[in-house]
Amino acid sequence: MPTISKKGTQMPESPIRKLVPFAEIAKKKGNKVFHLNIGQPDIKTPEVAMEAVKNIDLTILEYSHSAGNESYRTKLSASYIKQGVSVNKEDIIITTGGSEALLFAIGSTMDQGDEIIIPEPFYANYNGFSTASGVTVVPVISTIDTGFSLPAVADFEKLITPKTKAILICNPGNPTGYLYSKEEIMQLAELVQKHDLFLISDEVYREFTYDGDVHYSVMNIPGLEQHAIMIDSVSKRYSMCGARIGAMVSKNKEVMNAAMKFAQARLSPPTIEQIAAEAALDTPKSYFDEVIGEYRERRDTLIEELSQIEGVIISKPKGAFYCIAQLPIDNADAFAQWLLESYDLNGETVMVAPAAGFYSTPGVGLNQVRIAYVLKKDDLISAVRILKAAIPAYQAMTQKG
Amino acid sequence: MPTISKKGTQMPESPIRKLVPFAEIAKKKGNKVFHLNIGQPDIKTPEVAMEAVKNIDLTILEYSHSAGNESYRTKLSASYIKQGVSVNKEDIIITTGGSEALLFAIGSTMDQGDEIIIPEPFYANYNGFSTASGVTVVPVISTIDTGFSLPAVADFEKLITPKTKAILICNPGNPTGYLYSKEEIMQLAELVQKHDLFLISDEVYREFTYDGDVHYSVMNIPGLEQHAIMIDSVSKRYSMCGARIGAMVSKNKEVMNAAMKFAQARLSPPTIEQIAAEAALDTPKSYFDEVIGEYRERRDTLIEELSQIEGVIISKPKGAFYCIAQLPIDNADAFAQWLLESYDLNGETVMVAPAAGFYSTPGVGLNQVRIAYVLKKDDLISAVRILKAAIPAYQAMTQKG
Repeated sequence: MPTISKKGTQMPESPIRKLVPFAEIAKKKGNKVFHLNIGQPDIKTPEVAMEAVKNIDLTILEYSHSAGNESYRTKLSASYIKQGVSVNKEDIIITTGGSEALLFAIGSTMDQGDEIIIPEPFYANYNGFSTASGVTVVPVISTIDTGFSLPAVADFEKLITPKTKAILICNPGNPTGYLYSKEEIMQLAELVQKHDLFLISDEVYREFTYDGDVHYSVMNIPGLEQHAIMIDSVSKRYSMCGARIGAMVSKNKEVMNAAMKFAQARLSPPTIEQIAAEAALDTPKSYFDEVIGEYRERRDTLIEELSQIEGVIISKPKGAFYCIAQLPIDNADAFAQWLLESYDLNGETVMVAPAAGFYSTPGVGLNQVRIAYVLKKDDLISAVRILKAAIPAYQAMTQKG
Repeated sequence: MPTISKKGTQMPESPIRKLVPFAEIAKKKGNKVFHLNIGQPDIKTPEVAMEAVKNIDLTILEYSHSAGNESYRTKLSASYIKQGVSVNKEDIIITTGGSEALLFAIGSTMDQGDEIIIPEPFYANYNGFSTASGVTVVPVISTIDTGFSLPAVADFEKLITPKTKAILICNPGNPTGYLYSKEEIMQLAELVQKHDLFLISDEVYREFTYDGDVHYSVMNIPGLEQHAIMIDSVSKRYSMCGARIGAMVSKNKEVMNAAMKFAQARLSPPTIEQIAAEAALDTPKSYFDEVIGEYRERRDTLIEELSQIEGVIISKPKGAFYCIAQLPIDNADAFAQWLLESYDLNGETVMVAPAAGFYSTPGVGLNQVRIAYVLKKDDLISAVRILKAAIPAYQAMTQKG
C-alpha cells in the first residue's frame, strides 16, 4: 500500500473539529447546544448580492479572468480608495476566499523551510496553509494581560533568522478581537523594512471595529509598498462566507507576477460568486451601520455577562467578533468536551473553541477559550449563564476526582 | 526589497499566455482571430443548472461542509454508480475545480522533492501544481506516431526511483485526445501495484468519447482501491468551467483523511456553484447526446480539413476535444506568433497553442500545436483553411530568410 505524504500527516486538524462528535452526543441526548465556537455569522447577506445571483443572465458559465473579472477589480479598487486605501485594479488578484489569497501570498514569497513569524494566538488555519507550503510558523506570544496588543519589537527581532521571510498579522484579530493601532502598524512597518521582510496583513474583519477605533491598513504606509501584502475577503464583510471570494492585494509587482502564475494554474475564481461579490459593493451604508451596531451590542452583552463569572479573565475585543476568555479551569479542551458530553443546564449547554489550537507554542493557552459573538443577544446571555453554572460544577468535579 | 520565493520564479507560465499580446495586435489591425487555442467550450450550460441558480433561496450565503454539501455528494455518488463506477459519498471530497482536486491529491501523497511520472504531452498546469507543491515532474514520452497511446511499461519502469510516489494520467487526454483502453489502464494498475505507487487519473473528459469507445475508470479496478485517485470536474461535462466545482475521489481512507485536512484549512468549496453542480446532475441524456454528437462532427470536420494540408500529421482524437497536429515547420512558437502578428487571409487569422508547453522534456514537440475543436463547424473549416494557406506562406518566408 502506498504511503501518504509527511505533509498529509502533519496537516493540523481544526481545533473545533475534534469536538464535533461530542456535540453530536449532546444533541442525541436532546440537549440544545449554543454554538459559541463558530465563525459563521447569522447576519443576512445583503439583498443586492443575492438579487444579482437571481438575476444572472448567462447561457454559458465560463471561466473568468485568472485575476478575476476586470469589472469587479475596477469597482473593488474604487471601493478601497473610497475607504482611504490606495489600491489600483492592477494591485488586486481576486481569489477563491481569503484562504487562497493566503496560499498565494505564502507561495509567492516563501519556499520549503522558510519561516514566518506570527503573533499568537492566531487563526488556526495559518498553521494549515504553512504546513501545506512547507513553511515553518515561528510564533511570538501576545498575552491576555496586555489585551493581546503587539508584542515588543525586541520579541520579534529575537526570532528573525536568515530564513525569516515574512511577518503575518490578522487585524482586527481572529481569535483575539484586538485591533492594532496605527503606532503598532508603524512599528511593524519599520521592522520589516529594517530586516527586508514581507508584512502580510489579513484584514478580512476591517469593517468590524467598535468604540470609534479606526482600522489602519498596511496598504496605507508610504515606503512600505514593496513589503505590504493585504489579504481580504467578502466572507465576513457581507456575511457571504460561502461565496469563497477573496483578494490578494499588493503594490509589489514581482510578488503579484508570481501570484498570477499560481492564479493561472488554477484558471479562475468562481464566476457566479464574483458577480455576487461585485454587486455586494453596492451594499448601502445603513447595512453596515446596522450590522456593526448589532455586533457592538452583542460584544457589550457578552463582556458584561462574562465579567460576572468569578475567575474569568477577558480581553475586551476592539474589532472582529471573537474574544478570548481565560477560565478558572486547567484544561479548556477537557472542559469543552465535558460541556457537550456530560453537562446541561435545564437541557441546554454550550460549545466553545479551546484556545490551545490557536497557539503554536505547546502548553500555552490551555485554560483559554475563543468565544464568537455570532449569536443573538438573548442566546448569548443564555449561553454565558450556562458557562457560569458549569464552571463551578466542573471545578467541584475535577477537584473531587 | 524582500525577494520572492524560488517557487514563484519557477512557476511556469501558460503556453498560451505569451501569445495573448500578439492576439491583441491581430485584433488592433482589424483581423478576425479564430481561437483554436482555448479550452472554453461554446456549448450552453444545461438549463437545469442555471435555473437552480436563479431560483436560489438563501438569506445567508453560508459555508458548506468542507467536503462539499452532503446532498451533492450523495447524488454524485449515485450518478457514478449509474455510470458503473463504484463510488460512495465517503469516497468524495468536493473541490474548487479539478485544479484543487489535483492540488489536494498531490499534497496528500507527495512531499517536496518527490517525483511524479506523467506521460507527455500533458495538460500544462500539471507543471504548475507540481512546482507549487515542490514535486518533480518526470515525463515519459508518448509519440504522435502511436497516436499518443500508453508508453511501454518498461519506459515507466526505467524512470521509477525511491522518490517516485505516483503516476498521473489524463484520460481522455488533454492535449492528445487519446483514450486509454482497458488494457492500458490494467497495465498501469499492475505497474503501480508492483511498485507501490498511487495512480492519479484525471477523468474530467470522461463523457467525451467517440467511435463507440468506452471510458475505463481507475475506480473500476478490483484490488486497486488503495492506489487509485480520480480527479473530476463539472467544467467540461456541463460547460460549467466558471463554476469551479470538482471532486477528488478515492477509496484510500488515509489519503482522503489527509485531503480532508487540506479541505478544512480552506473551509469550503463555493456554495452557490455547488447548488448549480448538484442540479446539473439532472441534465437529461438528450443534452449529452446532442453535445457529443456536435463534438464528434467537429472532430471529423477538423480531421478531414487538416488532412488536406500537405505535410500535416495528425493523431485522430478518440475523446475530449483536443488534438495534436504536427506541422511542416520548425518552430510552432514562432509560427503561432507570426500568424497573429503578421499574417491574415482576407482579414482573418487563427490562434493555436504551441505544443512545446505541453511537454516537460526540452526540445520535444517544437513543430506541434494543440488544436481545440470548441468552435462551430463552419468556423473550424474557415480556421483550418487559413492554416492551409498560411503554412506554405510561412515556409516560403522562413526558407527565404
